Amino acid sequence: MKPSIPKGTRDFSPVEMARRNYIFDTIRDVFRLYGYRQIETPSMENLSTLMGKYGEEGDKLLFKIQNSGDYFQGITDEELLSRNSLKLASKFCEKGLRYDLTVPFARFVVMHREELQFPFKRFQIQPVWRADRPQKGRYREFYQCDADVVGSDSLFYELELIQMIDTVFSRFGVRVAIKMNNRKILAGLAESVDQADRMTDITVAIDKLDKIGLDGVNAELLEKGLPQEAVDKLQPIIKLQGTNEEKLKVIETVLSGSETGLRGIEECRYILHKVSKTRLNNTLELDLTLARGLNYYTGAIFEVKALDVEIGSISGGGRYDNLTGIFGMPGVSGVGISFGADRIYDVLNQLNLYPEATVSGTKVLFLNMGEAEADFCMQVLSDLRNAGISAELYPDAAKMKKQMSYANALGVRYVAIVGGDELATGKVTLKDMESGEQQLLTSEELISALR
Amino acid sequence: MKPSIPKGTRDFSPVEMARRNYIFDTIRDVFRLYGYRQIETPSMENLSTLMGKYGEEGDKLLFKIQNSGDYFQGITDEELLSRNSLKLASKFCEKGLRYDLTVPFARFVVMHREELQFPFKRFQIQPVWRADRPQKGRYREFYQCDADVVGSDSLFYELELIQMIDTVFSRFGVRVAIKMNNRKILAGLAESVDQADRMTDITVAIDKLDKIGLDGVNAELLEKGLPQEAVDKLQPIIKLQGTNEEKLKVIETVLSGSETGLRGIEECRYILHKVSKTRLNNTLELDLTLARGLNYYTGAIFEVKALDVEIGSISGGGRYDNLTGIFGMPGVSGVGISFGADRIYDVLNQLNLYPEATVSGTKVLFLNMGEAEADFCMQVLSDLRNAGISAELYPDAAKMKKQMSYANALGVRYVAIVGGDELATGKVTLKDMESGEQQLLTSEELISALR
Repeated sequence: MKPSIPKGTRDFSPVEMARRNYIFDTIRDVFRLYGYRQIETPSMENLSTLMGKYGEEGDKLLFKIQNSGDYFQGITDEELLSRNSLKLASKFCEKGLRYDLTVPFARFVVMHREELQFPFKRFQIQPVWRADRPQKGRYREFYQCDADVVGSDSLFYELELIQMIDTVFSRFGVRVAIKMNNRKILAGLAESVDQADRMTDITVAIDKLDKIGLDGVNAELLEKGLPQEAVDKLQPIIKLQGTNEEKLKVIETVLSGSETGLRGIEECRYILHKVSKTRLNNTLELDLTLARGLNYYTGAIFEVKALDVEIGSISGGGRYDNLTGIFGMPGVSGVGISFGADRIYDVLNQLNLYPEATVSGTKVLFLNMGEAEADFCMQVLSDLRNAGISAELYPDAAKMKKQMSYANALGVRYVAIVGGDELATGKVTLKDMESGEQQLLTSEELISALR
Repeated sequence: MKPSIPKGTRDFSPVEMARRNYIFDTIRDVFRLYGYRQIETPSMENLSTLMGKYGEEGDKLLFKIQNSGDYFQGITDEELLSRNSLKLASKFCEKGLRYDLTVPFARFVVMHREELQFPFKRFQIQPVWRADRPQKGRYREFYQCDADVVGSDSLFYELELIQMIDTVFSRFGVRVAIKMNNRKILAGLAESVDQADRMTDITVAIDKLDKIGLDGVNAELLEKGLPQEAVDKLQPIIKLQGTNEEKLKVIETVLSGSETGLRGIEECRYILHKVSKTRLNNTLELDLTLARGLNYYTGAIFEVKALDVEIGSISGGGRYDNLTGIFGMPGVSGVGISFGADRIYDVLNQLNLYPEATVSGTKVLFLNMGEAEADFCMQVLSDLRNAGISAELYPDAAKMKKQMSYANALGVRYVAIVGGDELATGKVTLKDMESGEQQLLTSEELISALR
């Protein structure tokens, strides 16, 4: 029998793990630096918590866990023979695997509301599962890295999240464009042309300007049912260009009649003004074509693009005003961002941005030249480990060639050799595998050399 | 609707997470110090990989994931109406959640044998799932922390694992007894009294000496079908006492006719001799009553008990000679240990052994006294974060009392205040919440004070 793993899942080798840990550790450090506190939730949630939260398509993509014991209980013969997969799923299964970190977080806040102090700043780094069709770069098990604040509608947190995004990618050494939109502006625009229910259509059409040109966009808007008058009024928006402030002025004119829209303008101005006073390494750009999570976000919307690699968005988020409402706790405003670890992994790989120390594990391998020599090595190994230096000994006195090829395969930088001569003097020969240089050292000298 | 989580699962709050991270980080650091390299495997494995590996009971305890789409496909009406839960599970479900880290590791080694360098020293820290009846201290989702070496039968690795156990618990500040047994000795004893198939019965009976006394043990052995002659011969073993070497001498006499048994004695002697040359903080004790994984381990067996807390074993492991055989790769010897994070958590809680720094998150909270003051605070916050100091600002100019009670609830040690006076001089008042002491500091002075 030849073993395999389920499609869409992955094994991670030591080198891949070292790189992934570098990504997770960096993001976690930044989250902590800004005062976000870690939580974890169970991999399984009750299906009643998950169902209906991700649309009809989402319900199908949930991994459902079969009930233990007699899972046929309570199902009639007729129901069984109906073979209605979707309907019977909730009878066969009470639990499902987490689909994202947002719904479990909302459930967490509602369940623990009495113990929490608001505003509650939390971060969470855990895998999620989706029964999506696996394809290049899309997996059935993958990590999300989320930071959210709930219980405050202060725009200060939009600013804080923008700073966090900037700090994370500065640490990675990746140049990015941070793009910002505002759901209230989009709603205001749709309102201003008397097409309040066409917000998404308008946004999606405008987003195609680069691909299909101005005439194409106008044609699509008419096709979607917008009257010519509305399309005419939207012309300045479709052709929107210039600095953030120039864009805001144009938008302001078009949606001047919409209270909601003007509030969106005001929010953007406030955030841009505050951001201008901080020392951001990356640019923040107003981009009306961001249509991320429109049936979900209520204020600011963020998306981050890498400048030097062709890849989709590598981070995103926004403001939502009613996350916990679905669980019976209305009126809790929140704002959050999510980092896509798998895409960041690809970006760092392509730009070769991993610090050298990330990948190397063991610092020094002691060769094994026989029992007495190995005994002596064990003492030195203890000293090294007490000094925090990762070190190991080859397990038996195999041929030198075999031991050296093991050292090479592990990618250790240093090899330590204790033969008869070294044993007599109580010293160790340290060989730098890169330069080929050798030194005869005492235990203490060895520690300083390896530090 | 009142949300809940599936029974046997847990949410982890920020304080619990900080403690758990301290445990995982400590164990991970030690694994790395000894040259073990991290891997991760998918949460889901094919059921064909998992089934039959944990006994009949284990098969029932696997969480099975319902196939996506039409899961009735390929099942006849007769089969459906038979309502045979166990048999049909493998038709409804192709995948299951990982039950431990050992079988996935064996699968990993076989699948990646060409890329791996042997001896392969790996560690893995991931959750596992079991549909066990939940009870105090037993969960349906819990973490395992495993380190194993495969591809070498050198006893040097038994020694290394003992050192690792010793280092881990020394770092935690927990006093433990490391207990060692050897499957070959147990087999040898059973062989010596001509009861080779009664190895487990004999071990289990001897283990009851403290509870039921010598007469009780003898009665149980007779009851299990051992002849009086065998029970007589086992008397020195049941009453076994003294130092490790004294015990070995007695055992050696009893099993002198068994080649396997003598090999077990020799292995124990070698390990004890080597250990005596290292500087262990904890004791290593020979204990013939360890019956852990007897249908699995083939040489050394380890178990770790905390000395100052009444709790089951907090770590354990052993040597196995054919882990990968089930996946068609025979003859690969391995040895490993596993740390029980949940029990270690309980032990550290009971003994109050968490370092203070573990639990505190944000170092300093800036109070918000108004817009101009907050703008100034933002500059200082950037300086602090660039210096690696975790800091945050209250999001709006709420009443002082509210902001202070937020600081208290978060448990921050320091509060920073910028009012009109501070703003005029460009300084910050830093208040130590423990001592009540206040200082007026520049940004640079603040950084040194908080470091």
